[in-house]
Amino acid sequence: MTAINTNNTEFFAPPADSQERVSQFMKQLQDEICAGLEELDGEGKFREDSWQREEGGGGRSRILNEGALLEQGGVNFSEVWGSQLPPSILKQRPEAAGHGFYATGTSMVLHPRSPYIPTVHLNYRYFEAGPVWWFGGGADLTPYYGFTEDASHFHKSFKAACDKHHQEYYPVFKRWCDEYFYLKHRQETRGVGGLFFDYQDGKGSLYRGPNPDGIAGTYSKNLPELEPRNWEDLFSFIQDCGRTFLPAYVPIAQKRRNLEYGDRERNFQLYRRGRYVEFNLVYDRGTIFGLQTNGRTESILMSLPPLVRWQYSYYPEPNTPEAELYDLFLKPQDWANWQ
Amino acid sequence: MTAINTNNTEFFAPPADSQERVSQFMKQLQDEICAGLEELDGEGKFREDSWQREEGGGGRSRILNEGALLEQGGVNFSEVWGSQLPPSILKQRPEAAGHGFYATGTSMVLHPRSPYIPTVHLNYRYFEAGPVWWFGGGADLTPYYGFTEDASHFHKSFKAACDKHHQEYYPVFKRWCDEYFYLKHRQETRGVGGLFFDYQDGKGSLYRGPNPDGIAGTYSKNLPELEPRNWEDLFSFIQDCGRTFLPAYVPIAQKRRNLEYGDRERNFQLYRRGRYVEFNLVYDRGTIFGLQTNGRTESILMSLPPLVRWQYSYYPEPNTPEAELYDLFLKPQDWANWQ
Repeated sequence: MTAINTNNTEFFAPPADSQERVSQFMKQLQDEICAGLEELDGEGKFREDSWQREEGGGGRSRILNEGALLEQGGVNFSEVWGSQLPPSILKQRPEAAGHGFYATGTSMVLHPRSPYIPTVHLNYRYFEAGPVWWFGGGADLTPYYGFTEDASHFHKSFKAACDKHHQEYYPVFKRWCDEYFYLKHRQETRGVGGLFFDYQDGKGSLYRGPNPDGIAGTYSKNLPELEPRNWEDLFSFIQDCGRTFLPAYVPIAQKRRNLEYGDRERNFQLYRRGRYVEFNLVYDRGTIFGLQTNGRTESILMSLPPLVRWQYSYYPEPNTPEAELYDLFLKPQDWANWQ
Repeated sequence: MTAINTNNTEFFAPPADSQERVSQFMKQLQDEICAGLEELDGEGKFREDSWQREEGGGGRSRILNEGALLEQGGVNFSEVWGSQLPPSILKQRPEAAGHGFYATGTSMVLHPRSPYIPTVHLNYRYFEAGPVWWFGGGADLTPYYGFTEDASHFHKSFKAACDKHHQEYYPVFKRWCDEYFYLKHRQETRGVGGLFFDYQDGKGSLYRGPNPDGIAGTYSKNLPELEPRNWEDLFSFIQDCGRTFLPAYVPIAQKRRNLEYGDRERNFQLYRRGRYVEFNLVYDRGTIFGLQTNGRTESILMSLPPLVRWQYSYYPEPNTPEAELYDLFLKPQDWANWQ
């Protein structure tokens, strides 16, 4: 390992066309995912709303409703800039204070019709602000009726994307995902997890914590420090992660799409979708921040399910598939090595 | 007006049996409301869960599901104590730091089946902590299809209860309600409002702000100072407010219960229920605090509707009853004087 000074400005400098290259990729990722999902769905088509942000920038929101396989799917691209980052981000990146910022990203949530096909979320984002830049993102899977081989396939796909770049990425980002997507008031993970990471600037700290605003779950500490990586390395990692989504998810949806289900399974799905709402509105930093500031509400809340049930004091009967979801799937598990 | 020193400990001291008297009233209020609602519903019955809190105290949660008129109704009583108040409350009441606390209250949310009958919320609570005590609470109405005479009846009922005690109560607590139950990301009030107040300790400041944690909407300032009032005065005010609920709400529900409706109205109701979820999970201090600490999740989330829809970029057609809700009812209005 070559010793690289983390103050070496030249080593860490993004290329001159960094913003253009990342936003180009983020748009392409949105295009590829929408095309892949339309093909998967077979009937539904995305419609697009372009929007502009008064303070600078804009985006294109795409939504598919009432498809054959997807009850609702939303895929957003945005590229925004402004005079300063919000305080919650500045707390984590104080070097950015007093500087303008640039941010671009793609995010997605799918709510399939069948309770046997999991809900899935993806988000990749890139920030520049004065002397600092970083990548963040991840993807995570939320089944209603769990299949260990599906959870395992999803994790193995992302582990392979990670391992191409560094052996420490998957174990750290998998754990971070389990901890971030955690509903403290239910003592449940949101689903079977996947990857989550933030503030990746190549300077060797995989984990940037502690959680700055007390909203999400507890975070890991004592993680390994890596040798520094430059901008190109990280951008390449992000691209691989982004392009892993379709092969990680589509085979699961295909395998489960023809399983028959009835009211029992549908009701359980609608009930469990309530947890998705609870997570996004109570804990998710991006959602809360977006709503409390000046985000485009309709794009932010595209993540919410089209139909949801709440039921007082519902607990599944022991030894049912519903109980198995709680007992096996809503706890951190070593899915990449599941036998 | 007699000049009363606000440091006059004797004047402000609660009676020796304050906790017993207030909790007794709160239980009775729960009983009366549940009885009144069962009578209104005609079919549904409340079932009760008693629960205990490890740190001290407990409660009784009552829920009515799938009634004739009420799709769901939850009425909670609780009485809890512990070694210290949470930081968010201590910020507002620093005199309570280092002291144990006692809190009791009754809260309720009703989700009627018919889109023509409004959802309604009520909460009254009482705290003691070392040298301080205070009352808080209120009631507010959330129509799906608005009727000005219903909004007016609800407000007039609570104004009459307030006016018995002080002319300043209604205008201040009405405005506080409009500002607290406000969805900033939608630029809508939650409904037509009612009353909301907190930290009422008789010491003359009707309004206790600013909002300590940035969660709810902006708060009023520059409110009148009242002459001090003692514990008995305030408890009597709270009792009158609590007992105003049934006569404020039941006639509205009775008047609308036989209006016919179809899929259009039902779908709009389910969509608008999403706003209730958004408010309670994103802004409501009690809900967020309860979920992030050690509250009884199932009792806290009894406020969430049994069935909810989200729909991307839905806006009502102009000149429809749905548009009228937004244009007329989801803005602060002088309902007590509506002609």
